Amino acid sequence: MRISELKLHPIAVADGPLRSSYGLHAPYALRTIVEIKTTDGITGISETYGGDRPLAAIEAVRSRVVGMDPFQLAGFWQYLSAQAEQDKADAAGGRSQTWLVPGENPLDQHTRTFAAIEVACLDAIGKALGRPLCDLVGGKVRDRVPFSAYLFYKHAGAGGMGADVRKDDEYGEIMTPDAVVRSCKQMIAKYGFKEVKLKGGVVPPDEEIAAIKALRVELGPKIPLRIDPNCAWSVDTSVRVGRELKAELCDGGYLEDPCAGMDGMAEVRRRLLAEGNDTPLASNVATTCFPHVPEAKRTDGVQIVLSDPHYWGGIRNQQKLSDLCEVLGLGMSMHSNNHLGVSLMTMAHAAAVCPALTYACDTHYPWQTEIDEVVVGGRIKFDEGSVVIPDKPGLGVELDYDQVARGRERYDKLPYRKRDDEAEMQKHVDPNWKRILPRW
Amino acid sequence: MRISELKLHPIAVADGPLRSSYGLHAPYALRTIVEIKTTDGITGISETYGGDRPLAAIEAVRSRVVGMDPFQLAGFWQYLSAQAEQDKADAAGGRSQTWLVPGENPLDQHTRTFAAIEVACLDAIGKALGRPLCDLVGGKVRDRVPFSAYLFYKHAGAGGMGADVRKDDEYGEIMTPDAVVRSCKQMIAKYGFKEVKLKGGVVPPDEEIAAIKALRVELGPKIPLRIDPNCAWSVDTSVRVGRELKAELCDGGYLEDPCAGMDGMAEVRRRLLAEGNDTPLASNVATTCFPHVPEAKRTDGVQIVLSDPHYWGGIRNQQKLSDLCEVLGLGMSMHSNNHLGVSLMTMAHAAAVCPALTYACDTHYPWQTEIDEVVVGGRIKFDEGSVVIPDKPGLGVELDYDQVARGRERYDKLPYRKRDDEAEMQKHVDPNWKRILPRW
Repeated sequence: MRISELKLHPIAVADGPLRSSYGLHAPYALRTIVEIKTTDGITGISETYGGDRPLAAIEAVRSRVVGMDPFQLAGFWQYLSAQAEQDKADAAGGRSQTWLVPGENPLDQHTRTFAAIEVACLDAIGKALGRPLCDLVGGKVRDRVPFSAYLFYKHAGAGGMGADVRKDDEYGEIMTPDAVVRSCKQMIAKYGFKEVKLKGGVVPPDEEIAAIKALRVELGPKIPLRIDPNCAWSVDTSVRVGRELKAELCDGGYLEDPCAGMDGMAEVRRRLLAEGNDTPLASNVATTCFPHVPEAKRTDGVQIVLSDPHYWGGIRNQQKLSDLCEVLGLGMSMHSNNHLGVSLMTMAHAAAVCPALTYACDTHYPWQTEIDEVVVGGRIKFDEGSVVIPDKPGLGVELDYDQVARGRERYDKLPYRKRDDEAEMQKHVDPNWKRILPRW
Repeated sequence: MRISELKLHPIAVADGPLRSSYGLHAPYALRTIVEIKTTDGITGISETYGGDRPLAAIEAVRSRVVGMDPFQLAGFWQYLSAQAEQDKADAAGGRSQTWLVPGENPLDQHTRTFAAIEVACLDAIGKALGRPLCDLVGGKVRDRVPFSAYLFYKHAGAGGMGADVRKDDEYGEIMTPDAVVRSCKQMIAKYGFKEVKLKGGVVPPDEEIAAIKALRVELGPKIPLRIDPNCAWSVDTSVRVGRELKAELCDGGYLEDPCAGMDGMAEVRRRLLAEGNDTPLASNVATTCFPHVPEAKRTDGVQIVLSDPHYWGGIRNQQKLSDLCEVLGLGMSMHSNNHLGVSLMTMAHAAAVCPALTYACDTHYPWQTEIDEVVVGGRIKFDEGSVVIPDKPGLGVELDYDQVARGRERYDKLPYRKRDDEAEMQKHVDPNWKRILPRW
């Protein structure tokens, strides 16, 4: 069994004008569908980051991938890691640039490239053997993977451009606590989520505090809540928000990346603990690669590490992170970017094989629609907020090639090849807008 | 694919009167050959610890194993771990009893039981798919696994009893530096080993220092040397030996478990470092389970963790240890007990998939002979001190059932069902002998 072909399908996925501390989501999110074919006629697929840079990174390994035995993933990881070591040695400091959008750090490109190939290989192996992907890495530890309602501040609109403008602005404008609560109720009614995350760092902290308090009143005491301002706050502000939301974030919730950097996170933690407030801090900014994890433990700057098979290096590296968190006594949750069904199933299998992952995973899936879905049968169904691991080979999904072609058409028409939330802010909201950390 | 049958073959393996700080090896080492059969007619095998207790521990999970899908190992691990948690909660302190012979700690029994079943399952899966075992866990990172010449002090004789007394005492008595050097030359000539370990803690430290110095003179500067007195020394003695052997143990060698306990190891390390001596300390006594590994890093008591798929919990847990050592910046080598070819191939596959394992693995294999080997085709061949990972399904070996039956016959005749090196010392060397730590 050898890989005989590697196909890359860049696609554009309509996305609403969601806000974060990075800026504004563009009308289309970019993704890449990866497809490998094997000498015995099996197809394996994966979904990864979109745009020129991720595409180029995968193209750069084409000659290494074609001809490869899909079982020989450790050797491929070593090959990519050795290249990355060289790149890091060439770069100043050699340290991850954690202020970047997760998944966009050039120094960690190799883990994203590896993940895209690894998942496609495991999908192909699973399809060849008639086994679910999770069985290939030891088997699942849970049959169903809970996801969280991932709430955003947003402007009116649902993305898309020209003739393809999406008409279904399901959640409308969300810029007030009331609208946050309304969108949450909509999302829970539709998907059955049992944990809730608010993307913050968009409006002044007091308004976001009010939104979380309103959610708690509306949802009652049993739904864990988390807020993630993407490092928009100073240490002082982080401590103040942590203090004011102590009651709301306890019992299974967390405060995610209130401020930038491990030192700042550790200071927030120390000051909150000194007040008797042990709200856990979660991060996908201070902890983006394995060496950061023992540092998180040593400094106590992060208590919950946010995984993501797309940028931590695929399924087995996701397991490695789970093992590491377990040994170090850290919690584990999962980060998300805009994605379609192939990624959702990848995240579900990845979560299903990680014992340490005990929080509901993030997902942007509710912000996308049937129009863009690329898997046969349309959008993946949630059962009371969870994805049930299917008893089907590989990831359990197949590509709908007509839909892939439509996504490709939209991609080809787009004037941009890179996510740039700051530029979108400048174009649509404020021509002088810059990402400033801390903003408050 | 389900497991339809579980067969356990307790066997006895002739073993010479080898010495260690635990005492004296008995005339037979005890092992258990594990065999599973699947509903589609595949057989998977493994080799593990012998005697009543390991047998009983595997018997205790028979009803959980028979009927199980061999791919669902994570669920089986969770099942065994949950039981072990309860056992630990019931035991005082809940901490591994690290003074015991590695592999004999009742609190870690579940990892040994899991390993025995996991390896047999992976062997069966590999045989079903026509894939080497290492391919099932991501593929190998090396094609050949180096082993070390594992030298012992010993009395004359080669083990066995009655009509089965082994006549071939290949290495004779080894109680002097000259005899140590002679046995080393014999072993290297026969197997081609390129690293050397001396089991110490048997004769006074000055004699063992002399043996290591004699080995260095004989072998020249390029063969890494290690010595393992199994905790027989005080902190002061450990520091003194480390000081006197500084030149001999550098460049790829190490000082293994000179004294008992992480605190003692850390003190030895501090005192040696203060003298500008960074001879690494290795351990399979202070580090026997995952929580010990970050402790090793924190205290700097251990720089090289000794793995062993038999007691760390099988192949994937061996990978987990490699990952953990890599992230924490610790070295990794491999421990051995008396074993036959099934274990040797297990160790080879386990080592082949662990990037962090950069030292030659220990093996007792040279102390056993063709008479007792249970794999078809007889003893595994070494190529310049290494085992080449075969391109054969599963572990790459099959059982010779006549040989298994002979091992079983010998086992049935034996009056003992447990390794007891202290009792053997009392019987054959000194009726008042006790294991005393530290002895020197």
